[in-house]
Amino acid sequence: MKNAVILGASGYTGAEAVRLITGHPKLRLTALTGHSRAGERYADIYPSTAHLDLPDVVTAGDVDWADVDVVFACLPHGASQDTIATIADKVDTVIDLSADFRLRDPDLYAKTYGRSHDHQGLLGTAVYGLTEFARHELRGAKLVACPGCYPTCSLLALLPGINAGLISTDNIIIDAKSGVTGAGRKALQSLAFSELSDGAHAYGVGTHRHAPEIDQILTRSSGKETMVSFTPHLIPMNRGMIATCYVTLTDGQSVDDLRAAYHAAYDDEPFVHIEAAGAAPQTRHIRASNHCRIGIFADRVPGRAIIISVIDNLTKGSSGQAVQNYNATQGWDETLGLHVQPIFP
Amino acid sequence: MKNAVILGASGYTGAEAVRLITGHPKLRLTALTGHSRAGERYADIYPSTAHLDLPDVVTAGDVDWADVDVVFACLPHGASQDTIATIADKVDTVIDLSADFRLRDPDLYAKTYGRSHDHQGLLGTAVYGLTEFARHELRGAKLVACPGCYPTCSLLALLPGINAGLISTDNIIIDAKSGVTGAGRKALQSLAFSELSDGAHAYGVGTHRHAPEIDQILTRSSGKETMVSFTPHLIPMNRGMIATCYVTLTDGQSVDDLRAAYHAAYDDEPFVHIEAAGAAPQTRHIRASNHCRIGIFADRVPGRAIIISVIDNLTKGSSGQAVQNYNATQGWDETLGLHVQPIFP
Amino acid sequence: MKNAVILGASGYTGAEAVRLITGHPKLRLTALTGHSRAGERYADIYPSTAHLDLPDVVTAGDVDWADVDVVFACLPHGASQDTIATIADKVDTVIDLSADFRLRDPDLYAKTYGRSHDHQGLLGTAVYGLTEFARHELRGAKLVACPGCYPTCSLLALLPGINAGLISTDNIIIDAKSGVTGAGRKALQSLAFSELSDGAHAYGVGTHRHAPEIDQILTRSSGKETMVSFTPHLIPMNRGMIATCYVTLTDGQSVDDLRAAYHAAYDDEPFVHIEAAGAAPQTRHIRASNHCRIGIFADRVPGRAIIISVIDNLTKGSSGQAVQNYNATQGWDETLGLHVQPIFP
Amino acid sequence: MKNAVILGASGYTGAEAVRLITGHPKLRLTALTGHSRAGERYADIYPSTAHLDLPDVVTAGDVDWADVDVVFACLPHGASQDTIATIADKVDTVIDLSADFRLRDPDLYAKTYGRSHDHQGLLGTAVYGLTEFARHELRGAKLVACPGCYPTCSLLALLPGINAGLISTDNIIIDAKSGVTGAGRKALQSLAFSELSDGAHAYGVGTHRHAPEIDQILTRSSGKETMVSFTPHLIPMNRGMIATCYVTLTDGQSVDDLRAAYHAAYDDEPFVHIEAAGAAPQTRHIRASNHCRIGIFADRVPGRAIIISVIDNLTKGSSGQAVQNYNATQGWDETLGLHVQPIFP
Repeated sequence: MKNAVILGASGYTGAEAVRLITGHPKLRLTALTGHSRAGERYADIYPSTAHLDLPDVVTAGDVDWADVDVVFACLPHGASQDTIATIADKVDTVIDLSADFRLRDPDLYAKTYGRSHDHQGLLGTAVYGLTEFARHELRGAKLVACPGCYPTCSLLALLPGINAGLISTDNIIIDAKSGVTGAGRKALQSLAFSELSDGAHAYGVGTHRHAPEIDQILTRSSGKETMVSFTPHLIPMNRGMIATCYVTLTDGQSVDDLRAAYHAAYDDEPFVHIEAAGAAPQTRHIRASNHCRIGIFADRVPGRAIIISVIDNLTKGSSGQAVQNYNATQGWDETLGLHVQPIFP
Repeated sequence: MKNAVILGASGYTGAEAVRLITGHPKLRLTALTGHSRAGERYADIYPSTAHLDLPDVVTAGDVDWADVDVVFACLPHGASQDTIATIADKVDTVIDLSADFRLRDPDLYAKTYGRSHDHQGLLGTAVYGLTEFARHELRGAKLVACPGCYPTCSLLALLPGINAGLISTDNIIIDAKSGVTGAGRKALQSLAFSELSDGAHAYGVGTHRHAPEIDQILTRSSGKETMVSFTPHLIPMNRGMIATCYVTLTDGQSVDDLRAAYHAAYDDEPFVHIEAAGAAPQTRHIRASNHCRIGIFADRVPGRAIIISVIDNLTKGSSGQAVQNYNATQGWDETLGLHVQPIFP
Repeated sequence: MKNAVILGASGYTGAEAVRLITGHPKLRLTALTGHSRAGERYADIYPSTAHLDLPDVVTAGDVDWADVDVVFACLPHGASQDTIATIADKVDTVIDLSADFRLRDPDLYAKTYGRSHDHQGLLGTAVYGLTEFARHELRGAKLVACPGCYPTCSLLALLPGINAGLISTDNIIIDAKSGVTGAGRKALQSLAFSELSDGAHAYGVGTHRHAPEIDQILTRSSGKETMVSFTPHLIPMNRGMIATCYVTLTDGQSVDDLRAAYHAAYDDEPFVHIEAAGAAPQTRHIRASNHCRIGIFADRVPGRAIIISVIDNLTKGSSGQAVQNYNATQGWDETLGLHVQPIFP
Repeated sequence: MKNAVILGASGYTGAEAVRLITGHPKLRLTALTGHSRAGERYADIYPSTAHLDLPDVVTAGDVDWADVDVVFACLPHGASQDTIATIADKVDTVIDLSADFRLRDPDLYAKTYGRSHDHQGLLGTAVYGLTEFARHELRGAKLVACPGCYPTCSLLALLPGINAGLISTDNIIIDAKSGVTGAGRKALQSLAFSELSDGAHAYGVGTHRHAPEIDQILTRSSGKETMVSFTPHLIPMNRGMIATCYVTLTDGQSVDDLRAAYHAAYDDEPFVHIEAAGAAPQTRHIRASNHCRIGIFADRVPGRAIIISVIDNLTKGSSGQAVQNYNATQGWDETLGLHVQPIFP
């Protein structure tokens, strides 16, 4: 058994980490932190956990790091890099769910997130943990930067085609839709039920922070400077995310070739599944699980294809992938703690 | 006062037509038809109308056409053309909400809708009623084909840019999201609350019937053969539709030029509104009204723009536009009967 | 035309008042106030009104009261009494939507709302505006206290039976369910979409402030000291409220007698409707309208009955009834401005 | 390992049984039946199971009963008794989720369910499986009748008070609210998303079939003939059920006494939890889990109390309790296969 600490356990990704880690056969939760909630019982913050035997919430400063093996950092960006810098040498592994160690270029980070990166040495050691494409690097890694939810969903849809040279890096358009939990647990009027139910809208159009992250990976994978169009939408559901990716096939390639490449990439994966031809994936079919489902379609416009992927933003898009990544760092079966079935209906 | 009949009043577009026409100062509802519900009180079909004094439901065959001025045909495609053919010369005006008179090319109709068009003479007389772009033709028209909900939403977003030559007809991508009422009132497991809540999915990917309709209008407006990518999604809300349109600016054009063109096109329109720069339209802000709101954005990819429009699929996307079209045929103020405010919250 | 001012226009009841008053043939909106939003365009607070020509938001102190005929006060309790005290003699009529003038007994008010009533002279002049039972008093009234949403829904269900002596005042149990808009427009984590979707719960069990208000009216109507059980629940819908009332029939009375009494009470009412025997009212059938629907049932327990009523909490439960009350004070047709049809689907 | 068969696996309770049994350490699914879906892959019926290795769907007639240990019968009432009669002597244990073996009195069954009970011998052997109150009988039982969802929720709220003599059997009123999955997976217009979203209503008022089942258990437990008022409501959520129970305390008893009795009854239970004083249970806090949470309140009316319980209708209200019951028949730890955490958010 390894001892795990969750930093920032009062947010939704923290709560999802609690759900998964309490069911993990090789992890034991030894501390939960939450700056503004320190001193409270976790069940007062999340009554859904009242039947569990969990430690009370403390501040990060009050954690005894002596026996901690792994930290799951569910902190806001900015706060995350600073906190991780203080603990990185006290624990074996840090799994960071924030944005702080995703972008390799500190200047791009500063531009995107509005503050400097002050721990560039650490940044250089971080592994970008899109698990299916990072296993070699993950093995033994000390610091894992878990991808953002949109990048996870989009890159799982795009990378096999990019890696096989079947998709042009020009003119990739990603239209994404997310459930509301993606916005976190906040006291904002704009997140109120009455504001968000029975309606939909785009946000961050042309400016969302996850776009450079997607660019970075596509550029690295393809070897060509890549810039995607990326537009997220907020839709009235709790969990789930869908990325509809419009791509141009490279010369002479067909959707059958594309489909074959995705099967080759994912058929042995425990969490990524290709839909039968003609079937579109639905977020509700992976709800509350670590699974991703991908549908591949010929566009009606010749030479183009549409690739659609769905994940649960809190699970594969966040805490589930975090657990999967930690499993990968330890060389364990990646599915440990992740045998939670989709909730349907 | 003109006497109006609604054919197919038992479906959702029929119900929305009832809502609007009962508040129209120059229309009087004289008959409601519904094949399978004939003989019933309308309030038994829609209890929300119980306080209104409405005629009982009859079959189309039982309508006395003597004093009917206008028919709003809310029938399924196929049934609509056949029924309209039998009554077109008995009434002054037919406003058809089905797909049967939208496509000018009977072969394309047959290919798209899986049956022949058997009334091509009538088809030749039909006006495609995207009101804002069809006023001259609508004045005095006898048969109006109301656009589909997706084409309405998409074309309002695209046409000013196309007409002004600011948008390339190549590589137009429309990612659309619709509330569930767009699927109609049907006893289908796939439309059940428990199947559709808290989830989202694409459907008709690469094959949706509204794509050729969009092509037709863009081709006619631009003078260039145009084929769009079009992908609709079903999201868990009742009413509302959003079309996120990804376009390429023509050489030397900017998003400012685009914005100016949309203001020029719509600033005098009662129902189409341009959002302030940076603001994304939300379907809930036009819920249950005939309004359309459009946001215009620079894409992060140079030379590209994103145009987003929202409508209520049952109002501007269907019965509201139908009433607006009838107003236009009569030379009336187009807003008659359409002063229903958006319902928010 | 009368000049109307809405105090507290930035909340949901204020927004609903704007919706209704802008469609009222005898009212003109001359000012909208909102303490924290003063100086803003109303469309920035409610984009759904962007197509309307509305005054900008000001503070109550900046309103010129010279030509104001009526004030609709949509303020929080406490603030309402103080503000109304300063303007009551400057305008003809004040329609108060807060709780401040509902309870006749200042001590009960103080106990219930946690502050003293400092304007007891005004309190003595206020008419409790449950319109259907207050018409004589409303005519010419200068200050109207609009009932709370739960009291409106509950009392419409109970009063005809109480007034006819068919229902015992002992052992009345009201189980109520409300949509989320009833909680107002607030930046609270507890009102967030992700906290409230796909779930339900009771709140204020045994302690809700609307219970004494219901007691007061039942006591006054029956002449017997009455105390009800009242339990509200929050359910994941935007608008709508349902009160399920469990009552004991007085000796020898039947549900048929009860039904007859309700028909006698309401058959001439424009906004209150009795369901056919066996039919249960649904909130969605009166959504966004001023209507109330009531179902009357024999309980399976002999001698008991169940009366269920539904309203839209923001319309008949708040701003709609407020407009109806103002119409009544002026001796106008009570339906002016209230011909908004239910939105279904 | 025991071999399990699910009869009627195509419905929602069947799907929930699949979810739980596939995670049960001592059960192996050997057959799934579904009359109208025989021959299909289960993943075609529930794509959410596509990653699991499940048997294809067959008819009940095609099951080889040789090695089957336990049958979970998720069939409609009526069909269930007939099918179970044919297999009861072929398998060790039958866990019936239908209503067919719940009512002890065949005449009451016939009156309630509209058909005769044709297997009264079997009926005499059935154990009513409200687990927490049936452990002695469950051990070794061959046929278990799992309680209905409403009876489960209501009886867990009422029985400790009844058993301790703290609650009068007169005048018990149960106001229940259920999510839509309780209606099953059916192609009905009345269950469509657009019909059920953003609204609520009562149904089966005074006539619901679960009322006699509640009566039966309360009568048996109290030794006094008991008849409850019971009114279910349908609210727009997927999973979850809440029973708000209004009761009269027996002479001299207090809510503190009541609370003590519930703690005594449930503090050692793995799945039933008492809320802290003043806290109301929320369905979302037990979503998708086998847990029940109960809140106990003094009513504002002296001498009365309000007991509120919440369960997930598909889990504790159906398939979860079924698994718990099977565990109990085998003398296993009752929590086997039921360590699924609540899904929140």
